[in-house]
Amino acid sequence: MKITTYASVSVILALLATPLLADDPLPSWNDGPAKQSIIAFVEKVTHPGSPDFVPVPERIATFDNDGTLWAEQPMYFQAFFIFDRIKALAPSHPEWATQEPYASVLKGDMKGALAGGEPALVELAMATHAGMTSEEFDQIVIAWITTARHPMTKRLYTGMVYQPMLELLAYLRANGFKTFIVSGGGIEFMRPWSERVYGIPPEQVVGSSIKTKFELRDGVPVLVRLPGINFIDDKAGKPVGIQMHIGRRPVMAFGNSDGDLQMLQWTAAGKGPRFCLYIHHTDAVREWAYDRQSHIGRLDQGLDEAAVKGWTVVDMKNDWRTVFPPVQP
Amino acid sequence: MKITTYASVSVILALLATPLLADDPLPSWNDGPAKQSIIAFVEKVTHPGSPDFVPVPERIATFDNDGTLWAEQPMYFQAFFIFDRIKALAPSHPEWATQEPYASVLKGDMKGALAGGEPALVELAMATHAGMTSEEFDQIVIAWITTARHPMTKRLYTGMVYQPMLELLAYLRANGFKTFIVSGGGIEFMRPWSERVYGIPPEQVVGSSIKTKFELRDGVPVLVRLPGINFIDDKAGKPVGIQMHIGRRPVMAFGNSDGDLQMLQWTAAGKGPRFCLYIHHTDAVREWAYDRQSHIGRLDQGLDEAAVKGWTVVDMKNDWRTVFPPVQP
Repeated sequence: MKITTYASVSVILALLATPLLADDPLPSWNDGPAKQSIIAFVEKVTHPGSPDFVPVPERIATFDNDGTLWAEQPMYFQAFFIFDRIKALAPSHPEWATQEPYASVLKGDMKGALAGGEPALVELAMATHAGMTSEEFDQIVIAWITTARHPMTKRLYTGMVYQPMLELLAYLRANGFKTFIVSGGGIEFMRPWSERVYGIPPEQVVGSSIKTKFELRDGVPVLVRLPGINFIDDKAGKPVGIQMHIGRRPVMAFGNSDGDLQMLQWTAAGKGPRFCLYIHHTDAVREWAYDRQSHIGRLDQGLDEAAVKGWTVVDMKNDWRTVFPPVQP
Repeated sequence: MKITTYASVSVILALLATPLLADDPLPSWNDGPAKQSIIAFVEKVTHPGSPDFVPVPERIATFDNDGTLWAEQPMYFQAFFIFDRIKALAPSHPEWATQEPYASVLKGDMKGALAGGEPALVELAMATHAGMTSEEFDQIVIAWITTARHPMTKRLYTGMVYQPMLELLAYLRANGFKTFIVSGGGIEFMRPWSERVYGIPPEQVVGSSIKTKFELRDGVPVLVRLPGINFIDDKAGKPVGIQMHIGRRPVMAFGNSDGDLQMLQWTAAGKGPRFCLYIHHTDAVREWAYDRQSHIGRLDQGLDEAAVKGWTVVDMKNDWRTVFPPVQP
């Protein structure tokens, strides 16, 4: 009889405990100041009657992509896409065999290919992102992203997203936030998979873009991608892109580099409650450790400003229980 | 007893009839082919199991603004805004007294002001839309739109919206559609009031724009509006604007002029079910009657293409029971 009673108590305790555990919206985050600051902010802006209450239509949250939602080392993944596309297109461009930066790409000499700096990368981007319709580009990206693997982890790149950030996106949406990507990456490079990977639909993706032109081809309307830059959504471009696409100042903003600093400044300067967060890459074992000196995703000025302004800084090593999702088969 | 029975029957009939009447989602539309085509399309794309079923995230509906959601005669309302702003700014610009097109505006000579054609209008637009921060412009628009009245009807301009279209917007949203404005008008001119008037939030407004620049003024981040055109969201620009902002082809598109033709072509050319609708201004008594010869909102090529392609054409005079909402005090 006594055993039965204990068993019943255990069952009851288990039943009580299960919903409590299941209620943790951020299970991949260790309990600590970063997680606590997120939850405290969301609770105060969503609690009806709170002096900090923010109506649902104004709950805008913006996220950088590279280094904030997925890994960006050893190189922005879009660069791998560009290199792979150059190789795929080379048979139609015999002149590339001797012409830089193409020749270096074809020889597999990435350092040589990028020796020309940003102009060389822009040229490579134009050669691979323009000259087809928007729908053709969409198909190319889809075909590539579903097979491309990270050079070091050999994971599908869509498996290089951060599990804690997926939970954060879901948590914010469950609390009435509209989640946007605001990335220096190409807007049409991210849209074909952002909905499937992040739950963010194409109309909530802001990014860099090339020019496009509408025309009728044999009576069929197409949007043709042209080899000219339309907009660079980085640094001071991010608040401009936010205003252009969203038209409302974010209430929460998330980034990881100095390229996100102006987005965080613009967010923080709004009236009423605002929340800014930097992800600090501190985990050399499970991911990469880099900040002030990094060529990719440098976080220098932003780290200082975060300290002065009291923004949340995620110490990846200590704040994240898990970094990447379980490996998909 | 008999009377009571009849009364009960009436009550029952009334109870039965009320929900039926209340269920009409488009009470300001007369029963006719336009209304029937809208409802038939929405029912087939939202009915689970239908071969034409469209998942909720893909239910994108785009609406032109001038002449489609509100009246555009005798002149685009944004032009009145420009003229009023020129008058308000004139004390700081003594040189405008003798300089065209400003001098004509200040003398109230609208014909003279517009004699210079599009370049003159662009110059006036730049003088009134640039040179302030995005938030300052927002405040100027709000202050003006809440007092500006239509020159002929003397209604507040926000009362010059079409009641049948307000019902249509609500009906589509109730059926899982995301409603967007895609207008040749200024994106930042529409956003401050589009949510209140149409229920369309700023992030679902696509329009023409001038350039903006992010800067820190005494440490305070601002977006400064610059006197240069960034994008013209008209004619062949509309599909480009749709791709840039939405990244997904509309399932339904609504316009009233040849300026909307490419948006309708782009929509109609998508795979699967698509719906295109032109509003034909045929009501000289309750609104205005104009089409092929009109300077504002010309509908010529579009009327021919609608006939060939079987798009829905709303005959405003016969299809709309009501044109404008009840007058607000």
